[in-house]
Amino acid sequence: MILELKVPHGADLAALRPVLPVFLTYLLSYVFLGIYWSNHHHLLHATKRVTGGVLWANLHLLFWLSLIPFVTAWMGENGFRPVPTAIYGGVMLLASIAYFILVRVILAAEGASSELAAAIGRDTKGRTSTALYALAVPLSFVECWLALGIYIFVALMWLVPDRRIESRIRAR
Amino acid sequence: MILELKVPHGADLAALRPVLPVFLTYLLSYVFLGIYWSNHHHLLHATKRVTGGVLWANLHLLFWLSLIPFVTAWMGENGFRPVPTAIYGGVMLLASIAYFILVRVILAAEGASSELAAAIGRDTKGRTSTALYALAVPLSFVECWLALGIYIFVALMWLVPDRRIESRIRAR
Amino acid sequence: MILELKVPHGADLAALRPVLPVFLTYLLSYVFLGIYWSNHHHLLHATKRVTGGVLWANLHLLFWLSLIPFVTAWMGENGFRPVPTAIYGGVMLLASIAYFILVRVILAAEGASSELAAAIGRDTKGRTSTALYALAVPLSFVECWLALGIYIFVALMWLVPDRRIESRIRAR
Amino acid sequence: MILELKVPHGADLAALRPVLPVFLTYLLSYVFLGIYWSNHHHLLHATKRVTGGVLWANLHLLFWLSLIPFVTAWMGENGFRPVPTAIYGGVMLLASIAYFILVRVILAAEGASSELAAAIGRDTKGRTSTALYALAVPLSFVECWLALGIYIFVALMWLVPDRRIESRIRAR
Repeated sequence: MILELKVPHGADLAALRPVLPVFLTYLLSYVFLGIYWSNHHHLLHATKRVTGGVLWANLHLLFWLSLIPFVTAWMGENGFRPVPTAIYGGVMLLASIAYFILVRVILAAEGASSELAAAIGRDTKGRTSTALYALAVPLSFVECWLALGIYIFVALMWLVPDRRIESRIRAR
Repeated sequence: MILELKVPHGADLAALRPVLPVFLTYLLSYVFLGIYWSNHHHLLHATKRVTGGVLWANLHLLFWLSLIPFVTAWMGENGFRPVPTAIYGGVMLLASIAYFILVRVILAAEGASSELAAAIGRDTKGRTSTALYALAVPLSFVECWLALGIYIFVALMWLVPDRRIESRIRAR
Repeated sequence: MILELKVPHGADLAALRPVLPVFLTYLLSYVFLGIYWSNHHHLLHATKRVTGGVLWANLHLLFWLSLIPFVTAWMGENGFRPVPTAIYGGVMLLASIAYFILVRVILAAEGASSELAAAIGRDTKGRTSTALYALAVPLSFVECWLALGIYIFVALMWLVPDRRIESRIRAR
Repeated sequence: MILELKVPHGADLAALRPVLPVFLTYLLSYVFLGIYWSNHHHLLHATKRVTGGVLWANLHLLFWLSLIPFVTAWMGENGFRPVPTAIYGGVMLLASIAYFILVRVILAAEGASSELAAAIGRDTKGRTSTALYALAVPLSFVECWLALGIYIFVALMWLVPDRRIESRIRAR
């Protein structure tokens, strides 16, 4: 992800003001992609068999993640209006479903009795965030800031990396 | 490959309409490059000797692949007219020939009796798609949608990753 | 980091003149990012345990580093005026603090008695540059060129890669 | 290196004409960077000790290589005029010197009696291309096409990857 901040022409703080919303949406995208990257790192690190299905589930996830900068910018540059906020939630929903699929495909390759299967368990946090995104999409049309609040809540919920996998690996 | 969707200024669904064809061509490029990346991953994973020839055959393939986003966008933004559709097919044809060359160069380095040679065998799928691309180029001037249908057919044919190599590796 | 030099239309040396300040700021960014990359390479090479905390401390550092091209360009294109020069120093300050945090998080994971802890020791050079950046921010409002002089001094101070870690590894 | 071909608006071959010079300079940059990448791959593959000096010599080389797309585009878009052609040669000269320095720094770390030192030997090809670039810079002001001919000659001379190193490794 490349930061596309246009260099302002003025040399005072006022010149930075038009850059600010783009900067904040960059920060938001960065945090979300950081969360996925970090959990993804732990997940693939614990994966021993990379099958064709794993590669494709991974590509599927990366497809939705590659749309995050676009939908974040669209939402941010329009002052958080209903349609962009709902579409943002839709892409986040599809990315979280794609992550869910990736986990299942990896578990299918690793075996249900594997260490990874035990570490992930019921995956309450993953299911909760998928449900919250599904809730935020219609909510965007009622009250945008409620949907945005849900997005920030999910981000905070995940900011702690997936210690379930990590602690299991450490315990070995 | 970077998604270059310009953020629209409006905040309703109508504002997304001009972005739609670019999005669809991005999706098509993504699928084709994903197919190459996935098969490429399996191929190089099974390669034990990286000679200078392998490096260059790889660079040759990457050259044609690097043109795919350009020709896809050109074809998509003009509503699938003859010349762009034919040139799209031409680049896909050259990429498939480059992949064929890469496979041969790797096999030459690995030896005809290698596991990889046995796994690839007669490479019917590779030869078929090269022939289909060669057919699609002149067909573009007769009926664009026929050529486009061939491109989508080849994509679907390859969406299943190269299980030949994978299953051999698994069998070990 | 991508060099975004617009190709000038003229074909003589005069046509290169508007590109020159962008080139010089590119050079400055390149040197600073090279310093971080080189020390970062040595640091992570000596790290044996990548915990979730290390991943996040690393992402935090990369966030500030990703802003360097933007603030360098803003400072350079405005002829080194107070506000951009101070903000440049602020980003460098936050990047150096993020590097400090990364070192601490890695040391916490590795253990105080680890080889890396001994190699880094009191980290005088790191603390000095953090202090110098903190000094340069207010100085920018007094005399820009003094702040710029500090930035160049810190760059020169770090141009020698972190031989502490390197020499310890070599000594093994 | 990203291919920055603007998608033309027309849908016939004539619409491709303005893209052609950019495409050809992209091809030239691709070949030169491919040569460096391939030899670089062989060189670093044979390197056993990555010291701070090696990292910096590598960064130095990458700096000049990162300028190649810019100078190639500048030369190509102006129809091969003296100043851009000379500056192109200058950057190629500095890149070849940087490669020479990288080889020396690696040899210093590996030891004069190392396998790599024996494989590289007198490095006639490297010295020849440095000399040819040094010749092409002033020649650009006499006759551009002569300088361009030298660039293409050097490219062809290097298109065969560095078999010296490769054959030694194979011989083990």
